[in-house]
Amino acid sequence: MALTIVGQSVPRIDAREKLTGRTVFTADQDLRGLVHARLVLSPHAHAKIRKIPIDAAKAVPGVVAVLTAADLPFGEETPNARGRCLLARGETRFPGEPVAAIVAESDAAAADGAARLAAAIEYEALPALIDPVAAADRSAPLVQPGLQGASWEAGAHGAAAAAQEEEEKAPGNVASQVKFARGDIERGLRDSAVVVRRTFRTAVVHQAYIEPHATIADFDRGARRLTVWTPTQGLFYTREQTASVLGLPESSVRIVPMPVGGGFGGKILLLEPIAGALAMIVGRPVRLVLTRAEEFQTATPAPQSILEVALGASRDGEFRALQARLLFDAGALPGAPVTICGLLMGGAYRVANLDIRGREVLTHKPPQGAYRAPGSVQAAFAIESVVDEIAEALGQDPLELRVRNVSQEGDPMPDGGKWPRIGLRESLLAVRESRLWGERPRRGGAKTRAADGTLAGTGIAVGGWLGGLEAASACIRPNPDGTIHVVVGSVDISGSSTSLAQIAAETIGVPMQQVRLVSEDSDGAPQSGMSGGSKIIYTVGSAVQKAAADARRQILALAAKRLEAAEADLDIVDGTVRVRGVPSRAVAVADVIKMTSGFGAQHAPVFGVASEAITTRSPAFGAHVAAVDVDPDSGRVRVTGYAVAQDVGRAINPALVRGQIHGGVAQGIGWALLEQMVYDESGTLTTGTFADYALPRSTDVPPVDVQLVEVPSARGPFGAKGVGEPPVVPVSGAIANAIADATGARIDSLPITPQRVVDALAARRR
Amino acid sequence: MALTIVGQSVPRIDAREKLTGRTVFTADQDLRGLVHARLVLSPHAHAKIRKIPIDAAKAVPGVVAVLTAADLPFGEETPNARGRCLLARGETRFPGEPVAAIVAESDAAAADGAARLAAAIEYEALPALIDPVAAADRSAPLVQPGLQGASWEAGAHGAAAAAQEEEEKAPGNVASQVKFARGDIERGLRDSAVVVRRTFRTAVVHQAYIEPHATIADFDRGARRLTVWTPTQGLFYTREQTASVLGLPESSVRIVPMPVGGGFGGKILLLEPIAGALAMIVGRPVRLVLTRAEEFQTATPAPQSILEVALGASRDGEFRALQARLLFDAGALPGAPVTICGLLMGGAYRVANLDIRGREVLTHKPPQGAYRAPGSVQAAFAIESVVDEIAEALGQDPLELRVRNVSQEGDPMPDGGKWPRIGLRESLLAVRESRLWGERPRRGGAKTRAADGTLAGTGIAVGGWLGGLEAASACIRPNPDGTIHVVVGSVDISGSSTSLAQIAAETIGVPMQQVRLVSEDSDGAPQSGMSGGSKIIYTVGSAVQKAAADARRQILALAAKRLEAAEADLDIVDGTVRVRGVPSRAVAVADVIKMTSGFGAQHAPVFGVASEAITTRSPAFGAHVAAVDVDPDSGRVRVTGYAVAQDVGRAINPALVRGQIHGGVAQGIGWALLEQMVYDESGTLTTGTFADYALPRSTDVPPVDVQLVEVPSARGPFGAKGVGEPPVVPVSGAIANAIADATGARIDSLPITPQRVVDALAARRR
Repeated sequence: MALTIVGQSVPRIDAREKLTGRTVFTADQDLRGLVHARLVLSPHAHAKIRKIPIDAAKAVPGVVAVLTAADLPFGEETPNARGRCLLARGETRFPGEPVAAIVAESDAAAADGAARLAAAIEYEALPALIDPVAAADRSAPLVQPGLQGASWEAGAHGAAAAAQEEEEKAPGNVASQVKFARGDIERGLRDSAVVVRRTFRTAVVHQAYIEPHATIADFDRGARRLTVWTPTQGLFYTREQTASVLGLPESSVRIVPMPVGGGFGGKILLLEPIAGALAMIVGRPVRLVLTRAEEFQTATPAPQSILEVALGASRDGEFRALQARLLFDAGALPGAPVTICGLLMGGAYRVANLDIRGREVLTHKPPQGAYRAPGSVQAAFAIESVVDEIAEALGQDPLELRVRNVSQEGDPMPDGGKWPRIGLRESLLAVRESRLWGERPRRGGAKTRAADGTLAGTGIAVGGWLGGLEAASACIRPNPDGTIHVVVGSVDISGSSTSLAQIAAETIGVPMQQVRLVSEDSDGAPQSGMSGGSKIIYTVGSAVQKAAADARRQILALAAKRLEAAEADLDIVDGTVRVRGVPSRAVAVADVIKMTSGFGAQHAPVFGVASEAITTRSPAFGAHVAAVDVDPDSGRVRVTGYAVAQDVGRAINPALVRGQIHGGVAQGIGWALLEQMVYDESGTLTTGTFADYALPRSTDVPPVDVQLVEVPSARGPFGAKGVGEPPVVPVSGAIANAIADATGARIDSLPITPQRVVDALAARRR
Repeated sequence: MALTIVGQSVPRIDAREKLTGRTVFTADQDLRGLVHARLVLSPHAHAKIRKIPIDAAKAVPGVVAVLTAADLPFGEETPNARGRCLLARGETRFPGEPVAAIVAESDAAAADGAARLAAAIEYEALPALIDPVAAADRSAPLVQPGLQGASWEAGAHGAAAAAQEEEEKAPGNVASQVKFARGDIERGLRDSAVVVRRTFRTAVVHQAYIEPHATIADFDRGARRLTVWTPTQGLFYTREQTASVLGLPESSVRIVPMPVGGGFGGKILLLEPIAGALAMIVGRPVRLVLTRAEEFQTATPAPQSILEVALGASRDGEFRALQARLLFDAGALPGAPVTICGLLMGGAYRVANLDIRGREVLTHKPPQGAYRAPGSVQAAFAIESVVDEIAEALGQDPLELRVRNVSQEGDPMPDGGKWPRIGLRESLLAVRESRLWGERPRRGGAKTRAADGTLAGTGIAVGGWLGGLEAASACIRPNPDGTIHVVVGSVDISGSSTSLAQIAAETIGVPMQQVRLVSEDSDGAPQSGMSGGSKIIYTVGSAVQKAAADARRQILALAAKRLEAAEADLDIVDGTVRVRGVPSRAVAVADVIKMTSGFGAQHAPVFGVASEAITTRSPAFGAHVAAVDVDPDSGRVRVTGYAVAQDVGRAINPALVRGQIHGGVAQGIGWALLEQMVYDESGTLTTGTFADYALPRSTDVPPVDVQLVEVPSARGPFGAKGVGEPPVVPVSGAIANAIADATGARIDSLPITPQRVVDALAARRR
């Protein structure tokens, strides 16, 4: 049957509200009796807290409470994730760790109190481990003596649970390690005609959402119920964690999802437990909103990584061996995406001999967090750089070399699994047809120096994402006016709600305007996974599709009675149930629903539901082409053109999918050229404002030529795959390869700053 | 299987919150930008609005808007129910009709503005029809020229839809009429050995909830969405009506259910449309809360009635003929419960020849509304009085005469249907065993004058309710900590939520503390009927039971995998799934639910749902015994003892059921002895405060001896029937009969004020 709504670029259902400024974000909310909280953050990477004199802060007019760890009857000795941290006890283990909290009648009073307290606290600085390589040494002191090292990151972002653990005992600060191997790596490298061996470094990068973290918590002491308003990406995970930290049953915590002003993996769990703790203590609703400076200091950026990669190929371009050593700096608590990095680095290409070992190491830096395609961004930068260098070494076309070697259905994954049908090769073939790639011969390479000295080049890279999994339910509730409520527990960080509404409208047979998406709070919402890992459309969308089909069946059964027709003869078109071939026999969906509502209704309400756990992933890949101009004197790189071909399975809403891809490319340009959080050797952040931390601006992002490739998923709704993470993945590699194409110089550290370009060109000249 | 939770008097789940004053009622809520509204009410029963000079009101500092009907782009020429009225257009048709609205920054400013406007409005008084008998005359001018007269009352409260309409053309102010007949009434009366013929009058009675009507409405102009916070008894009816009055799609109106501080039928729809209209116009959240005086003037009390009844019986006490003419004063808009009155009056006893005709007539008084067992209270007072007089005339025991004649399963109902299995006779037999009835011979009758002249008497009466019907859905959402959320759209006005939680706990097999009831708003809630007509446990409770059984099946299926056992061998006891007979093989429900949650869960979330439309009623009856002392000099009546036996089908929570019965008796005492809204001939309310309108106090209500009779319903959960309405029904009759027993005087008008007692005794002496 031809689709009429799925596949259409309908406007986002929240567009009007957002564009007209009507959206109420968490920080905008006012509650009766609301008090304002500020956190006092540690200025030290590692210090003993000697004394917290609270008198000066308490004396500030309007200050309601000054609280330290000693005042909290909750919290763990050693939390295993940043989101579970309340206030430091005795010692701080990362710069920006919350040490105390001020609660006051106004935000100004809270800020004043926090400043006075910050000035009063006495620390004894202790030696800090800032360099992950030093921290990974067996002789290094332990960052978290109490921690055994457990990570939810792998699960959260879809890496295989079966990642084999290395048997040898790791050094104490190694929080987790992973090993993927097949074949005989030494022989594979030995037998390769050409081997490229490089070490890559990626920076600590902040998610840089425009809305800072903000939470309001209110505790009902009588009922012992905590309500938390938060722009979290996931209701149920946040509920579980907040309840667990505060010692409450999950059903006593209500998470109210608020609009997310940018998440990208960084809005999962941060302020909810501490705000909840403060509300429980002061007995009033507490508002806690981070300043931008606090965002940089105490939130959870993407981790730094050091990736040693060796790729060997035969003379004719068959990849023979891939060896890698991955080191992720987790910061002070575990959870870095080392497993995902290994899977994606070793999975994009067929290679008979594989040996990838990864470790995450704890340091006295802020605990890392998820950021769009965690681990995969780092992996692609490294592997795509060496693949390009192999092509160069062999004198082959870099795109054709990839076409030859990329994984396809049935090829092995690093963890021993097999790839399902993926669209990696199809994306490469599609991007080969892009104008940008077609024009490459005319502009590529160091030979094309412009009159002003600018060097032009074009690069290619691929990359993708395994796709997340999490069980989900959904409800469809039609109303007597014919409108349809789609009730879900998922949070919209990417336009997913619009696509969910499209899926429901298409499945039932009603126009888009008749469908409304209802995101309930955690008390009543159908279960949903976190909006992360590119899984909402794949999992919740599938549940919505099935619930809508269930509702459709119920509508048809009622309409059959009403129309005195067989269900099999009925169809629903544009909100009307029709007897096929008899245009006069029809009834509006509204009138069918009226049969079930009001006093004395004789028919059960239409209530479509579905609940399912999808257990097979649908990985999604894309191929990117970047064109750059490089100024060899200043080292400045300008991205002048960009083309993406991405396998999306099925574009439920092409405009929104393109928007995801545009956004991914923009963020990828930030990774590639601009963004880094720099800590000095004492652990002090030297790039803690948007003046020091460079985000891409609109002029840094060229128009992006997008081709949507549709290799349908066997499982997603209408064949859809997750589309959110893949487009950020290949960008750094494509740009680095374009720079190499332009200049002949390979730069192996992100971001590729002008200084690094100048240095690389100088080194090349030597 | 033995029940462990259903049948237990567990405390109300909202008890702590309510008793500690934590419950936030609508009027307590604060929203950012909130403005306050006041209505200006008509002082005239019927008047032309000549001029509304708004300048003085507008000049009050803080006044934001002064609005009249001309400013509202909504509203109907002739609304067909009070709840649909916005502001009067051109003419007012009842005293207390809203004529204008003031919106201001503070409630004080709004009140000030309203007072100034009220003083400024110029009316031209028009002749008012206050007396329903005069209004029912064919020559009377029309109260509502534009109205055809339609009523939802019958459906809402469960009267049979099949009530036959009288064919003859009714006078213009008769909004609806009903006729029930069988046999040959003239012959039946002729053949009776004794006929008692009386005319009864009941007063206008206010529901007198402690919380006045209160609504907050907020309109999002961008999204065109209206949110309404209201203590309504029914989300979906209120949504439908509010949307319809304001010209919005139902899905654009969100009704947020707030705690109901007393409803009793009076909190269905009143302020929601006008508050919504004001919010749409001023563009800010509007709070509208009635004062107590406004409650009396502009809300919807129970209607006045005049009931002419003739009952004939054979010499040996077989009822042979029942003739009745029912006249209900609907006030200015239709909807009076004349059909229900006829069904209950003619249904409680077997009688071969029946002729009941009922009419509701429009007058220039406030439109009536529902009040606990509407129509049935009036019917029972009349029929139980004449039954008692028949017993007296025949020299028979009034209880035994009732036992002989009361309807049982299979007996005809006035509308031609047959009674299902009812517990009316069983209730009579049970109350016969009460101490109060047993002691009757020692104290009953005018012969027992005490030393101080007080006369003692004991009376009996029966009465009940047909039971309401409305389709309902429910969801069961277990959490990974083993707690269970029961998600419903019903509003708790009587403790029903506690019983719903018990039904879920019992059905699944978890302790009560693990169950939480979640009442969602109209956006996401499963469908539910209005909390009225004693139907929530019967309909929503049934859906909860089925949804819980669905969830239980899903839990057992997962546990079977976990325990490697057959589902049939499993049981859930106290939150643990056990293999029967193998105590060591068990798994907590929490651990089963954990199998479905978190990253990479392999099993679909447990999501129990049910959706159904019950189409058969389970009527419920009770028998009441009242003992009174009458002071013949002052006419003062004191209820000294009270016994109730009520068929409840199954008491889900006996303490709550007893509480319903206590409350019903207390309200019944108000009907019987104290409460009346008195209008003078111009239509001015002369009892508009709690100083003039006498509510029963705790000292007016004796201890109530309750026996719960359990004749199980074939359809309700665990056999339960609706218990809320029946206990108010027989009280007036029992007390009137006790007074007759004490004094020999029969009083046929409610309330039985001291003056009426004195007058009746004087008449008897003459």
